[in-house]
Amino acid sequence: MSDDHPACTLFCPGVTVWLTGLPSAGKSTIAHACETTLRARGMRVEVLDGDAVRPHLAAARGYSREDRAVNIRRIGWVAELLARNGVVVLVSAIAPFRDVRDQVRAAHEANGTAYQEVFISTPVEVAARRDVKGLYARQRAGEISGLTGVDDPYEVPLNPELVIDAHEHTVAESVALLLDHLGAQGLCACAASPTPALSEEA
Amino acid sequence: MSDDHPACTLFCPGVTVWLTGLPSAGKSTIAHACETTLRARGMRVEVLDGDAVRPHLAAARGYSREDRAVNIRRIGWVAELLARNGVVVLVSAIAPFRDVRDQVRAAHEANGTAYQEVFISTPVEVAARRDVKGLYARQRAGEISGLTGVDDPYEVPLNPELVIDAHEHTVAESVALLLDHLGAQGLCACAASPTPALSEEA
Repeated sequence: MSDDHPACTLFCPGVTVWLTGLPSAGKSTIAHACETTLRARGMRVEVLDGDAVRPHLAAARGYSREDRAVNIRRIGWVAELLARNGVVVLVSAIAPFRDVRDQVRAAHEANGTAYQEVFISTPVEVAARRDVKGLYARQRAGEISGLTGVDDPYEVPLNPELVIDAHEHTVAESVALLLDHLGAQGLCACAASPTPALSEEA
Repeated sequence: MSDDHPACTLFCPGVTVWLTGLPSAGKSTIAHACETTLRARGMRVEVLDGDAVRPHLAAARGYSREDRAVNIRRIGWVAELLARNGVVVLVSAIAPFRDVRDQVRAAHEANGTAYQEVFISTPVEVAARRDVKGLYARQRAGEISGLTGVDDPYEVPLNPELVIDAHEHTVAESVALLLDHLGAQGLCACAASPTPALSEEA
């Protein structure tokens, strides 16, 4: 697949896709794999990863409820700016609090910008075994506290647009589920029915 | 001029245009007038106004040198994200410190994203007479301190891509100077040689 398909940008209205779930649920892995696929189709895509973005938007903030909320709201504000300009914005951030997630959704709806909440539902037992960043181990060892899903709350989404049971799928399968969903919503024409890249016709 | 000209987005590589200058120099007025013109040509445009953006990005920050720098760097980070996705980003923010402006420029260059510094050179005497927000009057009355250009520094750009002597031009003339400049740089095909909108041909 070529990345030489600029016409795609005409058909994508832009959308914020918020992947929420526990640490090590698979949010960032799915987001970046999805990014690769969409970019290869010539679409404008950005991943806003909670940890990666934090130094840019909330460097002095910690992990209290209020500080987490500030970080999430700022990511949401940036995501909406990008999405309303035709970008598919894949946010991978725990976003543990329902009311803050709903504030971000409301800010999108107020501007008529598409928003999709995707719950990556990997259970805590599986996430703790994966433990990509060693956070679960450090929590068990008493080195850190306030780990979402263990000794800090995670409020499960009540009405997400999509649930991906990432622990029961390969990454490629999870990406396919996500792209099929976006396509079915008309949010991503290229993702729904990828046309041959121009260079393949040459 | 119609706003029905989506093809324009294909030819614009995106750019951050940072309008720097004293309070009441005319930065926001020029940015919003330019926004209106470009949007009517079907281009993707955002204005990031320093005061308007602050509640979203740096609500708890004040106007110390460090707090101003944080606000400017965050605006710069968001602007680069938008510009690299094909948006013409018009930043209207004082950005008084040369080193911080240069950091923002360097962050753009590191990503290969176009960046243009535009100095709105209205002198302090003229700006203080305009005093759109009443800041100069409040400073004279002793109600505030740390007003850029009066009792807080403004470091004049040494090598801006463009200087607009806004006090010697109408707003329309200033906008024309800015659009001509962007067009000459190849940063904005639509702005350089606006083609008739599709609906005018129908």
